[in-house]
Parts: sequence; C-alpha cells; structure tokens
Amino acid sequence: MKLLTYKTETSEPRLGFIHNKQVIDMEDFGDVSNFPLPNDMLELIDMGFDIISEINDLIEDTTDKQLAQISYAMEDITLLAPIPYPRKNIIGIGLNYTEHVAESARTLDTANSLPQQPVIFSKPPTAVTATNTEIVLNRKLTNQLDWEVELAVVMGKKGKYVPKAEAMDYVFGYTVINDVSARDCRRSGQWIVSKGQDTFAPMGPIIITKDEIENPHDLNLSLKVNGIEKQNSNTKFMLFNINDLVEDLSTVFTLEAGDIIATGTPAGVGAGRDPQEWLKDGDVVECTVQNIGTIVNTVKEI
Amino acid sequence: MKLLTYKTETSEPRLGFIHNKQVIDMEDFGDVSNFPLPNDMLELIDMGFDIISEINDLIEDTTDKQLAQISYAMEDITLLAPIPYPRKNIIGIGLNYTEHVAESARTLDTANSLPQQPVIFSKPPTAVTATNTEIVLNRKLTNQLDWEVELAVVMGKKGKYVPKAEAMDYVFGYTVINDVSARDCRRSGQWIVSKGQDTFAPMGPIIITKDEIENPHDLNLSLKVNGIEKQNSNTKFMLFNINDLVEDLSTVFTLEAGDIIATGTPAGVGAGRDPQEWLKDGDVVECTVQNIGTIVNTVKEI
Repeated sequence: MKLLTYKTETSEPRLGFIHNKQVIDMEDFGDVSNFPLPNDMLELIDMGFDIISEINDLIEDTTDKQLAQISYAMEDITLLAPIPYPRKNIIGIGLNYTEHVAESARTLDTANSLPQQPVIFSKPPTAVTATNTEIVLNRKLTNQLDWEVELAVVMGKKGKYVPKAEAMDYVFGYTVINDVSARDCRRSGQWIVSKGQDTFAPMGPIIITKDEIENPHDLNLSLKVNGIEKQNSNTKFMLFNINDLVEDLSTVFTLEAGDIIATGTPAGVGAGRDPQEWLKDGDVVECTVQNIGTIVNTVKEI
Repeated sequence: MKLLTYKTETSEPRLGFIHNKQVIDMEDFGDVSNFPLPNDMLELIDMGFDIISEINDLIEDTTDKQLAQISYAMEDITLLAPIPYPRKNIIGIGLNYTEHVAESARTLDTANSLPQQPVIFSKPPTAVTATNTEIVLNRKLTNQLDWEVELAVVMGKKGKYVPKAEAMDYVFGYTVINDVSARDCRRSGQWIVSKGQDTFAPMGPIIITKDEIENPHDLNLSLKVNGIEKQNSNTKFMLFNINDLVEDLSTVFTLEAGDIIATGTPAGVGAGRDPQEWLKDGDVVECTVQNIGTIVNTVKEI
C-alpha cells in the first residue's frame, strides 16, 4: 500500500493512498466501506499492521465508480511529509556505508575505521518538510550545506530489546529522506545543529508498506543536484542493516509506532568531493530510493 | 503557580496544581469555576501564559470548602513527570558552567577552552521519568553511569529567531532535570546514546511558572548521592544564560510550546572526580533547584 499525507487547496492535512495512480482519501474510503478509518498517518500505524491487508481487501470489494467519487488526480493535491510531525526525533544513523566512512574521514573529523556500533544522532520533528518545498540555507549559520539521500524505516509498533530476527515484525514501511547536513555547524563535535535545522529533513513522497518491498536490503538509492548525479548506491552496502539497527536502537531507547530511522547515506556527499561542493540558493536536490519514489527540494538562501 | 502531573491509585495521568500544600485537580477546578480547564500540561501551555493569572484570579474567588472537595493530600497522589511525553526531544546544553568545562576536559574527550556557542544535544521523550522512579542501569550498555543536576526551562509558545531581549516572553516556567549520562556510550563522539536511554531524564517534581521565580539566573542547584553532596552551584554561573540559549536555539530550530531546555550542569559530576565515581544499583540520587523542588531517583541495575 502506498500511503501519503496530502492537502487540497481547501483542506487541512489528510491521509490518503494511491490506487490506479489516483489519490484516494482514507477517511472517505472508510465511509464508503462502512469501516471507520483515520485521517492521520500515526493513527493508522497505531492500528497495527493487519489493518493494511484489511484495507487492501476492502479496496477489492469497492467499485471503480465508488472510488472515483473520493479520488483526486495527483496534480490536484499537494503532497505533505508522510508523517508531518513525528512523535520522537527522527533517529539518524551516521557512517553506515563503507565508502562514506572513508570520504568523511578524509574531509570531516570522523575516524577512518568502520564503526563497531551504529553511530546515532537525531533530527527534531521541526526539521521535517515535504517534497516540493524549500531547504532553508541560513548563511548566518552555515556556508557548507550538504546533501545525503537515505532509506528511512518507519516503525510499526512499540518495541524494547527487539532481537534482530524479529526486527521486521516491528517495521511498518519505508520512505525516502534527505539528511541535509550543514558541515560547519558541529559544536563540540555534536551533530544536532548540523542536521537538525528547520527544513533539514525532507521526507516522502509516500510511505510504502513493508509488504510491497520484497527486500529492503536491495534497493538502489541515488541523488542528483541540478540534474547531475552525485550519489548512487544500494542499501545492500549498509554496514548495519535494518535488523541490526532495530536491535541496537531498541536496546537504547523504547522504539515507538511512527518512529523514523534514517539508515545512513552512501558515498558522494558534497563534503567528500574534491573540490568540496556545497549547496547554494536555487539548487534543486532530487533523492530517489528504488520502488519508493523521489523527493525534490529547492535550496532557498535567507 | 505550582503545576504538576499526577495520578491517583485509580486515575489516568491528570493535571493539577498546588494550593495550601494540597493538590487541586485542574479539570475539576475548571468545573467548580465554570471555566473549562484542560487535563494535560501541554494543553494548558498551549492556552498562552495569560491563563496563569486567570487561574490565580479564579482561585481567589473560590471558597476553601469548594477547593477541599477537589483536592488531595500530597501523600495520596503519585507525581508523574510534569510533561510525561514532550513534543520534541528535550534540548540539552553541554558544557555550560566553567568548572564543568574544566572537569570534562580533564576526564572526558571535550576541549578545555570555553565553548563559543552553546553545545546542543538531545534526549528523546522516551527518556523522561518522574521523581520516585528508577534510573535503569543496563550493564550491557554502560559501566560509567553519571549524574547531572540542571535547571530546565519549559517554553511557553512557538518562536523562531527570538531576540535575547524578548526571550523571557517565550518562557512558561521551570523544572528540575537530572541529565543522566552514561559516559562510555559515546559513539563517534555523539552523546545521544550516553544521554538518551530510557529513564535518563528524571524530571519534576513540578513546573513552577515564571511569574513565581524572581530571577532564574540566581538559583542554587545541588545534587546528593546517598545523602552526600556531589554538586552545589548557582545558575548565575551559566556561560550562556537563558536569554542567550533561547536566541541561539530558536535560530537553529523552531522552538515550540512545551519544549524543554536542560540548561547544563555545574561541576561535581562523577566523571570529573578523582577517583571517578559511577552510579551503582541502589544508589539514591537527589537533585534540587532552589524554589522549584527536589527529584529523587533510585538506580536499578538490570
């Protein structure tokens, strides 16, 4: 199921799904199906993963005519971030692809050796923004604005001390995130100012539920700036895979439904290039993960 | 106004305030006063700071007999964290007292020079716990569990680019926090595993609204372990005061109503002592900030 949060010209944010390339409103679909459905992604996730197959069954029982009455063409809606305001900070994983560890050690202040445990940081919910919005470049804070395409995992239920083997039971689905990073904003080594500024977590365009992704550890991911490819790799090259991450993170924190894990970026960031490249006003950044989609954001200097 | 979140043996979490050493239920008080009042701290904060003087006026108009019917003795309720689940991660400030910068440089991996900008980190909402609860010591994660008493500032309204001079307009009140830190859990220098584990943010016992604190930059703060004083300082020794922090943080993030800023700890942490001291199973940690109160937590090894 391809889930999204959207608004129309006149509506508040609403939950929907994609069916035959149309956007169907979830709450309206519930009304048509005599099966109450929520108007918010977190509420849907809170219902438990079985709701996804139930909704799929209901869709099969619905006529195209019924669906047409509650659907929109993609061009008539505005996509919002699938979870516009996550409950917890987004949990970020640093240095999770070998080549990115190497490029970071060359040009940033990180070690050249591969991390023995996941490197964890956070991005606050106020950093989240949708596709087709602006990434704010505040020159008073940074002159080293950089990109990082990542697969993001959306958790489906609360978990503490989750063993690797059971990790996938706790996953709800996947989305794309750009872990925008201002390299010159580290303070006493801490990354939150680098990675946590408003608009530094473009996310979307949709959440695809886990049942529609055959293998999350074999997805191409790539990033373009102004149409030129800068990153191109595959999630199979993660140092700590999703199972590892869920086990480790849930040992540290209680993971909760709707929590988002940004699983790290491959090589090709601006800081790692020779010469280094930084984003500037008007640059267009496209982040793509195979089978999920593309988010597009424009840099806006203030 | 002294605000708290509490429960009785049979109730869900409820919002209350202290009046004549009794706990008055806020929602019930609203019923008695024919003035609807919420049952949740964040909802109250969202109403704007003027609500505090309105409630104070209503209290004056209420008879002791009316209040007695909706009040509890302190010993008949259980205190919860004043904001049991903050919206955003708690925003922590590192290295904000001169002597603590020095002791950290001696024994941890931080610089000896004073920071030129606030050092920011975060603690997730799942780290929050109340007074009279346990701090979990997971020996699989740490053998260096440490304490940090801090004044915490509770924000009262949304703000971005707040100038220093207006910072206090954005503050709602104050509480006490123990920024529990596992010193051996830094990963690639990042502090979130050190500081973000479940139960690593004991908070309370109450929120005191800003109108009842004459000068937040002149409050004694102290910490005892098993009755022995380990930290004793005053908020006047902060390197970056609350006005500085609100200006800086709101330049980075949008600050929101109910956000919590833990303003840093003074000298005297376990890592800075010679020999170093670490918390162990059964240790009792008491954190006090003048005019706010004391939180007491027991270490529980798992």
